[in-house]
Amino acid sequence: MTRFLTVSSDCHAGLLPEHYREYLDPQYRELFDEELAAQQAQREMMSKLFLVDEFNTKWKADNWTGLTGAWDHDRRIEVLDGDGIAAEVIFPDGITENNSPPFGAGLGLPTEGVNPEQQWAGARSHNRWLSELCQMAPERHIGLAVVPALWDVDEAVKEVEWAKRSGLRGILLPVMWGKLPPYHMKRYDPLWAACVDHEMPVHFHSGPAPQTDYFAMEPEGELATGAVGIYVSEVCWWLARPATFMIWGAVFERHPKLRVALTEGSCHWVPEYLELLDRRYTTHQASAKMGDFTSHLSMKPSETFRRNIVVGASVLARQEAEARHAIGLECIMWGSDYPHPEGSWPHTVDHRRESLRGLPEADIAAILGGNAARFYDLDVEKLAPIAARVGPEKSSFE
Amino acid sequence: MTRFLTVSSDCHAGLLPEHYREYLDPQYRELFDEELAAQQAQREMMSKLFLVDEFNTKWKADNWTGLTGAWDHDRRIEVLDGDGIAAEVIFPDGITENNSPPFGAGLGLPTEGVNPEQQWAGARSHNRWLSELCQMAPERHIGLAVVPALWDVDEAVKEVEWAKRSGLRGILLPVMWGKLPPYHMKRYDPLWAACVDHEMPVHFHSGPAPQTDYFAMEPEGELATGAVGIYVSEVCWWLARPATFMIWGAVFERHPKLRVALTEGSCHWVPEYLELLDRRYTTHQASAKMGDFTSHLSMKPSETFRRNIVVGASVLARQEAEARHAIGLECIMWGSDYPHPEGSWPHTVDHRRESLRGLPEADIAAILGGNAARFYDLDVEKLAPIAARVGPEKSSFE
Repeated sequence: MTRFLTVSSDCHAGLLPEHYREYLDPQYRELFDEELAAQQAQREMMSKLFLVDEFNTKWKADNWTGLTGAWDHDRRIEVLDGDGIAAEVIFPDGITENNSPPFGAGLGLPTEGVNPEQQWAGARSHNRWLSELCQMAPERHIGLAVVPALWDVDEAVKEVEWAKRSGLRGILLPVMWGKLPPYHMKRYDPLWAACVDHEMPVHFHSGPAPQTDYFAMEPEGELATGAVGIYVSEVCWWLARPATFMIWGAVFERHPKLRVALTEGSCHWVPEYLELLDRRYTTHQASAKMGDFTSHLSMKPSETFRRNIVVGASVLARQEAEARHAIGLECIMWGSDYPHPEGSWPHTVDHRRESLRGLPEADIAAILGGNAARFYDLDVEKLAPIAARVGPEKSSFE
Repeated sequence: MTRFLTVSSDCHAGLLPEHYREYLDPQYRELFDEELAAQQAQREMMSKLFLVDEFNTKWKADNWTGLTGAWDHDRRIEVLDGDGIAAEVIFPDGITENNSPPFGAGLGLPTEGVNPEQQWAGARSHNRWLSELCQMAPERHIGLAVVPALWDVDEAVKEVEWAKRSGLRGILLPVMWGKLPPYHMKRYDPLWAACVDHEMPVHFHSGPAPQTDYFAMEPEGELATGAVGIYVSEVCWWLARPATFMIWGAVFERHPKLRVALTEGSCHWVPEYLELLDRRYTTHQASAKMGDFTSHLSMKPSETFRRNIVVGASVLARQEAEARHAIGLECIMWGSDYPHPEGSWPHTVDHRRESLRGLPEADIAAILGGNAARFYDLDVEKLAPIAARVGPEKSSFE
């Protein structure tokens, strides 16, 4: 094998908004039609606030054919082949084409400004379509069902079961719970149990954060100074937060086979995060007044993390690759973030080489595909011929 | 000089609740009387939730005389002398005696479940009393005015002016803003300007965090598993958050002489925090779609931090002392956290020696008092005879 088996732990797919209609349960289609225009307008406003128009316009013009792979399977396979990717994990939302599921069922899964029943309907429409997309090359696509579990755990369990039957291979949960119960609560136990029973890893994806705090408007109508800087400084912390709640909440004690991926939040933070949790676990001096808060855990938080949690390290920085042993070589899964403009595509080959060149072959193999193959229990034999055809040459990393 | 000038960057003082009555504006006294019983009951409930009764009872029995120094000046001076402390920074709240200012004007300064006008009145009652306490030995007490600035910036400016005239030497602001405007907004500029004009450093003190998330109740009535572990893992991040907002919000560009202390949040986190902010400042790759978000800052976030921000490193861990150069030797101010049970008192001498022994004398001098003397512009000549009498012997750290 002269090429690396490469798995992107972070790709996205989504229909152009109007095409979600046919995947919606019929009773939601009238509302869908009504809201489509309003949604488009709101998305464009958000796009103006969060994206830079000029950047976006040029990005789309330069990359249009590849961008259509967000929904067109043939184009998608061309992009994966071009990027040397044998298999990919598929999250929702294409961003630049506003192609996220209807009724707030996209990546962020907000809990405010949405209707729970409608958000569920939107999620199901995406899951149905994604299931079809993945069936076109099931060995290459690890599709994730969107599951707005915070509203209704029984429904979430049913969706996990449906997703498993329909060929999807994991679930996406909301990063932020708003005013709904956080992930340390026992009410989610049936969901965790279902994910273990059906071997469906749980995913949290970076993006959500208290954006109304950051992007506040000054009385003069200008955006608050520093909003974007604060957002990019805090967003990874918000991504790791569900893990903090689940670890201390003993979720992995009750469900030792549950697997969780924290995706596109970089992995710089992992060593310091684990040190912090372990310090709190092992040194009670400053917290003695709060009594025993550790004996319900049979191992250190870092040990639980190593056993149950991985990071989808999209657009891995060179610095992160160099710190791989401190971060934990076995928890790092490379990702391209296609088709997002902050991802490595259409420069994946160069960016990946720059990130990883000179590292030991075994380490590159683990980061590029070995860790993902283990986490998702991939059929490596089926992927071998694809990797042999499109994978990056090992020699290119020397 | 054979002894170190020692300043505690983190002490607390508070009246027994009923004694705040006479310091309240008269129109609030009737309400105060009505609420006193209810407040006591609620505080006891919180005490049961957050403190362990048995621990607390023993702590109080063992340390009663010293604990009365929370409000009794003679006892307080005895404790400071015994701890080798020449000068101290005084925050509100005694905790174990429920001795925090009325109407939610204590350390946490919550923005929900309080009445703004009443919280202001409670803060003023504390500030009046604290001003009297500090006058008993003004060279030794750096009293901080409680300022619930989120509600009303004009009032906050007036309180800064009053506090300065009344011998207080800094202010305490709320760590969490709830639904009120965060600290990157320009509405706070008059407050920052007043703090600069009157040389009143701004303080944030650890404690507040989204506790209703952590301490949720399971349907069976038990506390959610892991609540305390999550709290102690997150609380320092919430403390640092105002700095994140202020740095990106260019507050220190507009007010380059503004000084901020982040107290009792440990200092382990400083290097990784500054690396994160600097990484966001210098590498735009992942954020290009968000446009230019750095050119409004004339220097890196870490440079601003080094110029304007210090940490009140209460109960400094040995590991932190060893990492002092990475953390930033000049930003670390030792503190005893007297009279809190998680503080070093009544074992300050031993704990401090264990933290710092073997370090170069100049480094110990900076951490124990030099940094605080610079930050608070202390009258070192006036403090010298006190340090010579009570300060820890330099030889004891060899």
